[in-house]
Amino acid sequence: MKELQERIVQDGKVLSESVLKVDAFLNHQVDPQLTMKIGERFAQLFADEKITKVLTIEASGIHFALATAVALGVPFVYAKKKKAVTLSEEVYSAPVHSFTRQETYQISVSKQYLSPDDRVLIVDDFLATGAALIGLTQIIKDANAHLVGIGAVIEKSFQEGRGLLEQAGVRIESLARIASMSPEGIQFIQAESVRV
Amino acid sequence: MKELQERIVQDGKVLSESVLKVDAFLNHQVDPQLTMKIGERFAQLFADEKITKVLTIEASGIHFALATAVALGVPFVYAKKKKAVTLSEEVYSAPVHSFTRQETYQISVSKQYLSPDDRVLIVDDFLATGAALIGLTQIIKDANAHLVGIGAVIEKSFQEGRGLLEQAGVRIESLARIASMSPEGIQFIQAESVRV
Repeated sequence: MKELQERIVQDGKVLSESVLKVDAFLNHQVDPQLTMKIGERFAQLFADEKITKVLTIEASGIHFALATAVALGVPFVYAKKKKAVTLSEEVYSAPVHSFTRQETYQISVSKQYLSPDDRVLIVDDFLATGAALIGLTQIIKDANAHLVGIGAVIEKSFQEGRGLLEQAGVRIESLARIASMSPEGIQFIQAESVRV
Repeated sequence: MKELQERIVQDGKVLSESVLKVDAFLNHQVDPQLTMKIGERFAQLFADEKITKVLTIEASGIHFALATAVALGVPFVYAKKKKAVTLSEEVYSAPVHSFTRQETYQISVSKQYLSPDDRVLIVDDFLATGAALIGLTQIIKDANAHLVGIGAVIEKSFQEGRGLLEQAGVRIESLARIASMSPEGIQFIQAESVRV
């Protein structure tokens, strides 16, 4: 998505070879028009998939999930992050290891909101290690729902997330794929849509 | 907002005289069309206020902030919740006491995204004790920005939040004001717009 890539170059800040700050327009201060376009693009890419539900994880996936759900005309659900203590039989849950914070937390979705009839599109702001997204795929599996694919706004293609998810046969659409980056510049992989 | 009140009656669950569960359509599974209408309604109510920014708090305010920001054509910012350890000079922050969890956490907004030129509308899903909203008003004050008012999707009018904020001279617009509730039913205050 050209507009997104240009915006990343213009307003993103590369803090190191692995850390990209986009909090000026994507995940702290948010550009609503760009967010809605991102949702429309995900809806377009997965238009043939008869999606019944969009799934994301709090907090920074929520606005992209809303934008996508508006474009698709289906509800969205956001998984809650909880410490591992609050497990319940009423939820599907999965552990997620955060490499930045070096801690494992639990994500959960109420059993009421995912069913075997659902065809689910996952969306999130970043695909990097894939940890949170793999947790979400686990929840969809536990619900016996059908995972249609993953829409990631930004992919750090130099990290292992895409590889791990592709091994599991998951279709991934990332709107900006970063091959490498440094404070001097960002190299994008230009092909926006790659089917597994 | 009639559609919202009807939906609360239809899909909300009153668990006690103070706990209302709306996770079927507002804050876990989310109805995107209703969310966008809520945003349009806030934009309408504050149309004359020359708003430059919408402010909310992660996680359950984010989709309402996006919907409102789309309708107003301005960016939104969501305050991050952090444990009190991670204070920094780069952020405006305020303590918020959670009565349900009996803990105090820190909310913060990067100094880059609020300025004295900003005319800010706060939106959130619930106005109850007002704790989180008062924290947000404190942050706006610290930034020397102008607080235009607060848009709350649901107000528990029997709790102290509105009173505390009104004492501070804050304009509040709540789309569903609950006078009282029990598992047998919900009583709404019908006047949607009350100016202080």
